Amino acid sequence: MSTIADVAREAGVSKATASRALTGSTQVSADARRRVHEAARRLGYTPSTSAVSLATGRTRNVGVVMPHVNRWFFAEVLEGIQQALLERGLDLTLYDADPGSETRRRVFDEFLTRKRFDGLIAVGLEPAESELETLLSLSRPVVSIIGTERTTSVVTLDDAHAAALATAHLVSLGHRRIAFLGGTAATLWPHVESARYEGYEREMRESGLSDHISRTPAELTMSAGYAAAVDLLSDPSQRPTGLVAACDEVAIGAIIAARRLGILVPSDLSVIGIDDHENAEMFALTTLRQIPREQGATAVELLMRHIEDPTAEPTSVIIRPRLVVRNSTSTPTGSSSAAVRDAAWS
Amino acid sequence: MSTIADVAREAGVSKATASRALTGSTQVSADARRRVHEAARRLGYTPSTSAVSLATGRTRNVGVVMPHVNRWFFAEVLEGIQQALLERGLDLTLYDADPGSETRRRVFDEFLTRKRFDGLIAVGLEPAESELETLLSLSRPVVSIIGTERTTSVVTLDDAHAAALATAHLVSLGHRRIAFLGGTAATLWPHVESARYEGYEREMRESGLSDHISRTPAELTMSAGYAAAVDLLSDPSQRPTGLVAACDEVAIGAIIAARRLGILVPSDLSVIGIDDHENAEMFALTTLRQIPREQGATAVELLMRHIEDPTAEPTSVIIRPRLVVRNSTSTPTGSSSAAVRDAAWS
Repeated sequence: MSTIADVAREAGVSKATASRALTGSTQVSADARRRVHEAARRLGYTPSTSAVSLATGRTRNVGVVMPHVNRWFFAEVLEGIQQALLERGLDLTLYDADPGSETRRRVFDEFLTRKRFDGLIAVGLEPAESELETLLSLSRPVVSIIGTERTTSVVTLDDAHAAALATAHLVSLGHRRIAFLGGTAATLWPHVESARYEGYEREMRESGLSDHISRTPAELTMSAGYAAAVDLLSDPSQRPTGLVAACDEVAIGAIIAARRLGILVPSDLSVIGIDDHENAEMFALTTLRQIPREQGATAVELLMRHIEDPTAEPTSVIIRPRLVVRNSTSTPTGSSSAAVRDAAWS
Repeated sequence: MSTIADVAREAGVSKATASRALTGSTQVSADARRRVHEAARRLGYTPSTSAVSLATGRTRNVGVVMPHVNRWFFAEVLEGIQQALLERGLDLTLYDADPGSETRRRVFDEFLTRKRFDGLIAVGLEPAESELETLLSLSRPVVSIIGTERTTSVVTLDDAHAAALATAHLVSLGHRRIAFLGGTAATLWPHVESARYEGYEREMRESGLSDHISRTPAELTMSAGYAAAVDLLSDPSQRPTGLVAACDEVAIGAIIAARRLGILVPSDLSVIGIDDHENAEMFALTTLRQIPREQGATAVELLMRHIEDPTAEPTSVIIRPRLVVRNSTSTPTGSSSAAVRDAAWS
């Protein structure tokens, strides 16, 4: 059985350096770290991480709680968190916490209270009061992604601002009949949906378009966006010339629905989303870009600061999205060209 | 500071039962487990998991290694694994291992060798020889999902059979010009892509259609499927009447391409996929269904068996997909109706 001393000798470093390299400390050069790990592998040496944890009081592990991993935003955030933790030599323990589920209750009552982590990143959790109490009682730093909760540090898109910018883009192109598509009462994303709708509503009011404010509910998926858009667009007399979709997946569903109804995008209907989803480019979708992967990396940075300095003040990192103009938005030529067509047929 | 004895008294159970409940043992009734956890929470008691690990030699943690989490298949598998582990009171540590990346090297050389888990689930890893050596040297049970690697237990779709069934469905409808869409030389999924293509090729040969075997490469995404289908379908003289797509995302891209080219699905072109992706229904896609979430749960079951009985033999669980017929496939009416159209125009 090799010891840490054997590994240090084999790698040509001090025992302290070997120990730091093997416990994932960042205070070791990349070269030394690699030599120590290669030596450890050659000698078949593995530190007992349980013993390391007892000795240091650190788990070298970060917990991530999110309601789903199989949605674009969450999966991208998780990738960003994972990469940032790997760079720091930290493990990632994943806790799935689907709202209202029995497993969510168990995650909060049993799993989290084991405190097998130095800190937690809570993604889109929107915790109930009792859950928030549990989180705070862990005496481990918590960083949230998404949400209104302000007792912890937060990384979040400015959702209201994103929707206001999307609406303003359509207004500046000359649209007046601009509808909002997406969001429901019972939803996975109460904060995101309400903030985005509020941003749209505010911008419409400020542009003197209060009479045109309207919302068609839809879950935030492509197929729900498709179905809702079919309903909204099938009556030509009521049809808007511009659509602000609650997210890109809903926007893409609406574009597919428009094509099937023979409505030309963008000349008859402009569609704008929020996210810059991986499929946005394929549908030439104009959108407000957020980069969830970077939000994950930023959350890790914030968390590290809190772990290293438990007295650090909670911080909010508010992300301003950038407008990406593609080919799904244009001036509302629909009405005039319809007049031309009518004339040709008369 | 409360002790385990306080918790046991408060919950009205023996110390042994309280201890089992708190370390996540399954040998405790759900009711007792809940009472113990409620008592522990009321008393503010949390066992030191590092101490528990040292005492039991178990980490109560399972490692999951996968190249990506932001793709449908991987995200669904991860959900299935997570749920199954939560039910058993086990933690999940996620290791991201993008092929060829520096982080993958670090995951194999540093993270996995820490052995902070009782067992590993390797999803779509297709490990290099040196990586496989590392996995086997960990002396922890490993279960693979996807792949040809047979030194560990495996849960996998019968990919060749799935593609053969897809091809046979089009053949039985009367198609002869059936092309395969998807797969490339440099790919994320060498096993999946080659096995599915082989299944198509074999079925074509056995149906006497060797002359019509053709493959158009595309990465396994919707946008790549779209671009490849535009190339394949834009020359009417060469156009197939049936398409076997390497996966549903490619198939959906092809359906969108066909619509944009004015090719009617299914009357001019039948399209069949493999997966039953969450968007398959929206596009009325006929497909071969696999349920990755269940594959994740099955992998957990297999892993538990290996953890409890280290001498258990490796097992392969081969999943046979089920044909789901929707509206993207039909008899090849295209050629005859084209003839009718030509006649009308002459």
